[in-house]
Amino acid sequence: MNFASDNTSAATPEIMAAITAANEGAAMPYGKDPAMDRVRAKVREIFEAPEAEVYLVATGTAANALACAILTDPWGAIFCHRNAHIEEDECGAPEFYTGGSKLVLVEGAHARMTPDALRRAIAFTGRSGVHNVQRGMVSITNATEHGTVYSAAEVAALAAVAKGYGLPVHMDGARFTNALVAGNASPAEMTWRAGVDVLSFGGTKNGCMGVEAVVIFDPKRAWEFELRRKRGGHLFSKHRFLSAQMEAYLAEGLWLRLARHANAMAARLSQGIAALPGAALDHPTEANAVFARFARAGHRRAFDGGATYYLWPFDQPMDGPDEDPLSARLVASWSTTEADVDALLGLIRGRD
Amino acid sequence: MNFASDNTSAATPEIMAAITAANEGAAMPYGKDPAMDRVRAKVREIFEAPEAEVYLVATGTAANALACAILTDPWGAIFCHRNAHIEEDECGAPEFYTGGSKLVLVEGAHARMTPDALRRAIAFTGRSGVHNVQRGMVSITNATEHGTVYSAAEVAALAAVAKGYGLPVHMDGARFTNALVAGNASPAEMTWRAGVDVLSFGGTKNGCMGVEAVVIFDPKRAWEFELRRKRGGHLFSKHRFLSAQMEAYLAEGLWLRLARHANAMAARLSQGIAALPGAALDHPTEANAVFARFARAGHRRAFDGGATYYLWPFDQPMDGPDEDPLSARLVASWSTTEADVDALLGLIRGRD
Amino acid sequence: MNFASDNTSAATPEIMAAITAANEGAAMPYGKDPAMDRVRAKVREIFEAPEAEVYLVATGTAANALACAILTDPWGAIFCHRNAHIEEDECGAPEFYTGGSKLVLVEGAHARMTPDALRRAIAFTGRSGVHNVQRGMVSITNATEHGTVYSAAEVAALAAVAKGYGLPVHMDGARFTNALVAGNASPAEMTWRAGVDVLSFGGTKNGCMGVEAVVIFDPKRAWEFELRRKRGGHLFSKHRFLSAQMEAYLAEGLWLRLARHANAMAARLSQGIAALPGAALDHPTEANAVFARFARAGHRRAFDGGATYYLWPFDQPMDGPDEDPLSARLVASWSTTEADVDALLGLIRGRD
Amino acid sequence: MNFASDNTSAATPEIMAAITAANEGAAMPYGKDPAMDRVRAKVREIFEAPEAEVYLVATGTAANALACAILTDPWGAIFCHRNAHIEEDECGAPEFYTGGSKLVLVEGAHARMTPDALRRAIAFTGRSGVHNVQRGMVSITNATEHGTVYSAAEVAALAAVAKGYGLPVHMDGARFTNALVAGNASPAEMTWRAGVDVLSFGGTKNGCMGVEAVVIFDPKRAWEFELRRKRGGHLFSKHRFLSAQMEAYLAEGLWLRLARHANAMAARLSQGIAALPGAALDHPTEANAVFARFARAGHRRAFDGGATYYLWPFDQPMDGPDEDPLSARLVASWSTTEADVDALLGLIRGRD
Repeated sequence: MNFASDNTSAATPEIMAAITAANEGAAMPYGKDPAMDRVRAKVREIFEAPEAEVYLVATGTAANALACAILTDPWGAIFCHRNAHIEEDECGAPEFYTGGSKLVLVEGAHARMTPDALRRAIAFTGRSGVHNVQRGMVSITNATEHGTVYSAAEVAALAAVAKGYGLPVHMDGARFTNALVAGNASPAEMTWRAGVDVLSFGGTKNGCMGVEAVVIFDPKRAWEFELRRKRGGHLFSKHRFLSAQMEAYLAEGLWLRLARHANAMAARLSQGIAALPGAALDHPTEANAVFARFARAGHRRAFDGGATYYLWPFDQPMDGPDEDPLSARLVASWSTTEADVDALLGLIRGRD
Repeated sequence: MNFASDNTSAATPEIMAAITAANEGAAMPYGKDPAMDRVRAKVREIFEAPEAEVYLVATGTAANALACAILTDPWGAIFCHRNAHIEEDECGAPEFYTGGSKLVLVEGAHARMTPDALRRAIAFTGRSGVHNVQRGMVSITNATEHGTVYSAAEVAALAAVAKGYGLPVHMDGARFTNALVAGNASPAEMTWRAGVDVLSFGGTKNGCMGVEAVVIFDPKRAWEFELRRKRGGHLFSKHRFLSAQMEAYLAEGLWLRLARHANAMAARLSQGIAALPGAALDHPTEANAVFARFARAGHRRAFDGGATYYLWPFDQPMDGPDEDPLSARLVASWSTTEADVDALLGLIRGRD
Repeated sequence: MNFASDNTSAATPEIMAAITAANEGAAMPYGKDPAMDRVRAKVREIFEAPEAEVYLVATGTAANALACAILTDPWGAIFCHRNAHIEEDECGAPEFYTGGSKLVLVEGAHARMTPDALRRAIAFTGRSGVHNVQRGMVSITNATEHGTVYSAAEVAALAAVAKGYGLPVHMDGARFTNALVAGNASPAEMTWRAGVDVLSFGGTKNGCMGVEAVVIFDPKRAWEFELRRKRGGHLFSKHRFLSAQMEAYLAEGLWLRLARHANAMAARLSQGIAALPGAALDHPTEANAVFARFARAGHRRAFDGGATYYLWPFDQPMDGPDEDPLSARLVASWSTTEADVDALLGLIRGRD
Repeated sequence: MNFASDNTSAATPEIMAAITAANEGAAMPYGKDPAMDRVRAKVREIFEAPEAEVYLVATGTAANALACAILTDPWGAIFCHRNAHIEEDECGAPEFYTGGSKLVLVEGAHARMTPDALRRAIAFTGRSGVHNVQRGMVSITNATEHGTVYSAAEVAALAAVAKGYGLPVHMDGARFTNALVAGNASPAEMTWRAGVDVLSFGGTKNGCMGVEAVVIFDPKRAWEFELRRKRGGHLFSKHRFLSAQMEAYLAEGLWLRLARHANAMAARLSQGIAALPGAALDHPTEANAVFARFARAGHRRAFDGGATYYLWPFDQPMDGPDEDPLSARLVASWSTTEADVDALLGLIRGRD
């Protein structure tokens, strides 16, 4: 019962089989492997974007930081939500890769920026000419760090604000598929048709071993991406193993199935917790993560029973009255089972 | 018959088996997996360095650039051979990670620095106080980019020059094991006993899928390494797959056997080429790469017969007299067979 | 009647005389001029800090950015007020010089951080180990960008919070003297005795032509400062002209007299405005800048009469009802006269 | 008798008078002063470049490093002579401002690149696609660091090589006027007509207090320059004092007269030294610096007599046989007099 993160899960059997199959004979290194050609074609097809350039890296931080670096100058502000992963969880990787950009933080409930808040933040920045950092780019995290989702229309509304200022838009889609399957939009509608210029398209958290695609819808900065990827140490010599993962991930809808399952497990868990006396959701459960508060006694039983997850914020005291609620983050993944969910709920409830 | 590079080879069966075995259940991410503890212990044992800190990344460029970044300030010169990988093949990754260090190039035949040339380069740098870049660090590539090897004594002689100026020493050991098995020195003698402070200890080119260890013999900069690794996007969430590779690589001497085999195949090829009429070695064959020149007709037959390798430099014209020699680089790996070597030699000779 | 900024003023006669006097014969360049030795001694005496190192640069942005760069690593957060000059008016110079630090913004009325708000910001940062930017340093702007002043006790309270977390403290003292003369503290009490490690000690805004001293109370990072200053292009060859300014500035209390005068002119202006019907101060007038709101008609009369100053924020519409107030920033300098103030007040009042 | 450098000299009376005259009343800061408009117009007139953008900074290192930063990406190589100032004397400022470019060193006698050597260096760089640093820009130092001069035709020949590879050209003209007056070319012929895109146009070494113009002949990167200048801390608030210097410098041919005088003094000194028994020039004397060797006894007499200059290289031993020659650099400036030269020659000769 590991709900600590979706990255504690293993790779799916399909992904592992693809890696094993790729381990035959010689293959040209550094992305010149034939599988990468197939991956590129498949991504273009899925996104209905025949001009898009596609690159693979192995970590989400690399995908995001490199994407930002090709979209803004060092003196450009990156507008993102206060709880964006690039702000909170990457040790300043965007600042490093961009050469010192400033992340300007936008407010909004449940880790979602509102168009108005975004507009205010942009309008406030760069008003004094050379004295200020300039308006650089907008980064949208979808699904968000609080388990919520922007619909395609909401993405388009944010992107419209960005475009109104001539700013490019990045989407941190480490959990893109979880967001996508939460609604009815197509991949194209969720991204370039809504105004997204570059997508970090995550695989690792959704069943891969370690691969993220960076999809550059406007390919004019693609060569710069290649140089920055190499310079950042993110161009793999045995690249075929990245290609193999992504190829299997996108084949026959695996990526969608995995995300639907994870979202469903989170929904099951969320409903179970919400039904507990005194419990409440801290954020709506729209993707594969549950943010909820419930009685301290329930947490104690869960931890004693072997469940793994994080109190969120993690510095809440375990000492205290049984009935007082503590907030937690519980993340479901492709490998979470209904039995896992029910076992956890059982522990929390303590009915057994 | 792929002699283009050791990174065109697959992963060994042992490595693949370890990856498959690691793909079970949940594991804590970001290097907190138990296998990493075993890897750390094993590296310390192999290097007789109980204090050493050990970190894993997935590319050699990341290992080298991060290692440089913890050893020198932005205004410190990195002294290395003109043909070092960090100078020639990393698109400026050391400059990026260090924040703008200058690589000061040292001469020496066969891609090996001499202590005298190193001393002159260091002595010449930083003589004018604040006006110059300062003396920062020394980086030694072993095995070298020209297939030669520094003995432990030669490493010690270079490191002594560095230490005479108070400079730390990095070893780019993307092919460390190939260098190690070429002589009689122990891992400790080849590294920290000789004066090496940080080692990039390669796995990828020697049979792994994609893993390099950075061994920090003096652990006082280890925390800085961890921060720089994260900030560079090189901390893996599903880290267990890096750990699994390195654990299998170091188990039961696999790493040594793989390198001995690759070196032996290179020696076999080297001897075969050297025996050709009009052929000559451009550099001594001491590790797993052959740098040799032989008749253009032999190259034509090899390429026509399906062999893959690079002319070196690659811009030599294939048009021209049959008997005129062209230089080439041919790299053997763990997966090169005697039959591969003999088939290539047969093509070159054209006896069939 | 120029109240746009204290940097629209000329240099004082004493400063200009010193520059002229320095323009004789040869002088060794790059800070080796004898006048720099006298400046260093004088700063040490004034600050009762015989160990302090002192360097001169020509702009406040250089002083601040270089100071930050020697106090924090690239992955360290710089805690400062949301309205700090380093956040709002330096186009990301701190990010550039530090190699990508993140400025973490602290709240507080009238551009003053409170110890509690600072503590919360620090406590919130760097809780997740390697995943977050780390706690780096605290920067205090005194006088603030809103014309208020921290007392020595208030500086000490903020520095105590910083020191509780082991963080160094920078003071942006572009208007240090204006802050100093607003209270009774000595230079030492306002800085190192309160816990300040590095001071940007401004001259330009207070009557110099272009010179700022960086005072490093703990000299162990002084050599790094020298290297960063040179590398940043801020080491002057004809350094004697910086030394001459600072020497004259500190001689016979000129710096204090100039600031007292500027503060007095601001106070006179502030009182005059506050007495207007419908007018109000936006921030207390504690140094040499007045932030106040008064009737639009008053602004129109002032601008029509030739006064220069900025509406603050500057995008308030001049069109609108006469009686509706607009906010403005009006800055006094050493060269502001009582006649200037009274003339401006007369225009605003429209009594003439 | 100070021949240590042209930057040990004072400012000329005309420059000082202009600074004094500028010290009247209020002036808008940050380059918005009216004098800057006049400077811009004058530079455009002198260079016959009505589209050129012109910016002022206070140090040559700032001018050069900022110029490089707008001409090359971080992964672009800067091709320059091994003895260029940007390589030898700026503590890595170009690397800092560009975000980690690599300076690729070109050979050539007397600190002058030859077109062939430049072509070879460019051709060798960036041949392996993403694995290498790319070809970025060419920087030409004129006058050179060894007191020699490129003619306009020689500049054009180098620039033609650069343009053949699509590379922009920077000229480090810290001593531009000394180079210009050494030949018959116009400012336009020496720069943009020859293919120079950005010129660092020095004032400080040729009689100013501290001002350098950056002339951007193709203005499309001008805004980037403005942002980088601010971000680097090189935008002066009391900018009028930079403008005043440059305006006086360019008025009525002062800049040309000063350089002609300095060159003439160097020629007089050079001829005098060359006539000494056993003496020889190390480099031709074409601008305002003499590089020559003469008997150690002559150096002893000169130093004993109060002369100031540098042995070059500076680590030659003063102990040794009287007649053995030591090499030196002796720099003349606008303030060097015939009497100074003759007095120095007299000391060296020991005739008195």
